[in-house]
Amino acid sequence: MQDDFTLRPIGTLRTPWHDIPACPRNGRRPDPAPLCRAELLPEFIPGLLGLEGLSHLIVLYWMHHAKPSGLVFTPPFDDRERGVFATRSPRRPNPIGLSVVKFEGLDGPGVLKLRYLDCVDGTPLLDIKPYLTTTDCEPGASMGWLDMHATRNRNTQP
Amino acid sequence: MQDDFTLRPIGTLRTPWHDIPACPRNGRRPDPAPLCRAELLPEFIPGLLGLEGLSHLIVLYWMHHAKPSGLVFTPPFDDRERGVFATRSPRRPNPIGLSVVKFEGLDGPGVLKLRYLDCVDGTPLLDIKPYLTTTDCEPGASMGWLDMHATRNRNTQP
Repeated sequence: MQDDFTLRPIGTLRTPWHDIPACPRNGRRPDPAPLCRAELLPEFIPGLLGLEGLSHLIVLYWMHHAKPSGLVFTPPFDDRERGVFATRSPRRPNPIGLSVVKFEGLDGPGVLKLRYLDCVDGTPLLDIKPYLTTTDCEPGASMGWLDMHATRNRNTQP
Repeated sequence: MQDDFTLRPIGTLRTPWHDIPACPRNGRRPDPAPLCRAELLPEFIPGLLGLEGLSHLIVLYWMHHAKPSGLVFTPPFDDRERGVFATRSPRRPNPIGLSVVKFEGLDGPGVLKLRYLDCVDGTPLLDIKPYLTTTDCEPGASMGWLDMHATRNRNTQP
């Protein structure tokens, strides 16, 4: 049983953003999104075998810059209080960040070319998983209070 | 800076499966998938505010039953070696599990009704995030070596 709940970084994420205010709200903008990199520690490079042919990955990372916060707050683009589990705020009880990213191949051993990251440069990488349309893709999902925000951002009719 | 890399459970996942061999390969089968539950520790319940209206969530959990493993292995349904980061195996450097689940509302304070989980009963819960079609949904993604397996499972023409 692994019950110590201790993580170890497997590498580092390299992005163009050097502090939290500089990070984009949505890593898919502008389009095309900037090229980022995941640099694996040498000992973990064998774990990349078979990654070729996958167009998208899920990356998990440790949001080391996120300060602890209360469980309820008003998001910056909102006018009501929301619980942290109804937001993607980095300030969460366990600051694990998740991004679905576009995988554009390797740039040397252990260096992955990625798009759609939105985190600070130097963020510790925790895991890489294949993105599976069979279990990770829900095109018809309702986003609750976040639907309103997404609609406003797309400039479409409500 | 949060650089101690230590997690704390925020609750427990309740599923019908009491050991790893009993867990389904894909939590969406059979259809309809069994009803599961996430039970939050009382101190984290305020963080659920605003979750109503979301049809799908991402849950992260600690795969405490997963034994450590090498970085390269032959998956049970495959005939070639793959690196752990090209698989969704629970045996990974950081045993964080991820499921996109259907959210069917609350069953009392701090108890979420969920479908599509595939983990062992009693699995420690780490995080709940809203599933966002704007950043989490990639219907056209290629799954690389896993495409072959998914095609075989659907019994469609290759």
